[in-house]
Amino acid sequence: MRVLGVDPGLTRCGVGVVEGVAGRPLTMLGVGVVRTPTDAELGHRLVAVEQGIEQWLDAYRPEYVAVERVFSQHNVRTVMGTAQASAVAMLCAARRGIPVALHTPSEVKAAVTGSGRADKAQVGAMVTRLLRLDAPPKPADAADALALAICHIWRAPAQNRLQQAVALHTAKATKGRTA
Amino acid sequence: MRVLGVDPGLTRCGVGVVEGVAGRPLTMLGVGVVRTPTDAELGHRLVAVEQGIEQWLDAYRPEYVAVERVFSQHNVRTVMGTAQASAVAMLCAARRGIPVALHTPSEVKAAVTGSGRADKAQVGAMVTRLLRLDAPPKPADAADALALAICHIWRAPAQNRLQQAVALHTAKATKGRTA
Repeated sequence: MRVLGVDPGLTRCGVGVVEGVAGRPLTMLGVGVVRTPTDAELGHRLVAVEQGIEQWLDAYRPEYVAVERVFSQHNVRTVMGTAQASAVAMLCAARRGIPVALHTPSEVKAAVTGSGRADKAQVGAMVTRLLRLDAPPKPADAADALALAICHIWRAPAQNRLQQAVALHTAKATKGRTA
Repeated sequence: MRVLGVDPGLTRCGVGVVEGVAGRPLTMLGVGVVRTPTDAELGHRLVAVEQGIEQWLDAYRPEYVAVERVFSQHNVRTVMGTAQASAVAMLCAARRGIPVALHTPSEVKAAVTGSGRADKAQVGAMVTRLLRLDAPPKPADAADALALAICHIWRAPAQNRLQQAVALHTAKATKGRTA
């Protein structure tokens, strides 16, 4: 399973590609940041985010894109830019038919550190260990993007099992009714 | 001046095209709503908004796109979808090199009714009168999109005069320093 994680932002949009399956060592294929100039017009910044995400999709052909779920109650000043950058990332993926998954910051932290309240340093340290890197990826947005991708790989089987269980239950219930 | 007004939303995105100049009667060229199914995945809804906006840009070739400025403090529940739909509209315009202007809801209301606190009915009534329509455009999102376009046509000359004044002042100041 190859996943592009996106930590959305207008000034710095973290991107990281991880490959692997739950229960096996994971491999980092690439990590970076899509930046847009703070003094550019908003429309042009969104175009720059689109071009950056498209380049990552072209280069790595991920099977899934995992984007951080943005909440309106957090960081009111920056939340609009974050929401707009995340919209562009989701649009780019959906346009190619790539499934998009959203994970909350606490889901991501809990997945990689065991605690939903872990700080940036802890997340960076665990990303470094899990991907067997020499040093934590910088800036933090890049490390967060990798954490998102790891979270998706680890959560996906549980989500799939849940979906399978629901599908099986529904099928049985339907069978029960028609019998 | 031909302006596409966009009242952004994921479920209903109002769109309206108005042509004219400040001080002359205005003409409505088109009005409508881009809808996306509430039960679709977010990525697919954003793709549907993109396709809808692209169709309007293709059909009417506006010189400006005016989008409602989204504030994070209002309507916390729906603000994320609004921000994401507005990002797609701005992206579509900027990608074509069409200038994007943002106007706040109170600027729009003040422009068409004289009061920044006017209600939906008042905005609808004034849009109907200013564009010489038989009835207020429905739904309200469509009327709001037309109001945005009207607001842009009426505010643009003032903004341009301001920019010209600043440019002139800067030129004079530079001349003064180099003399």
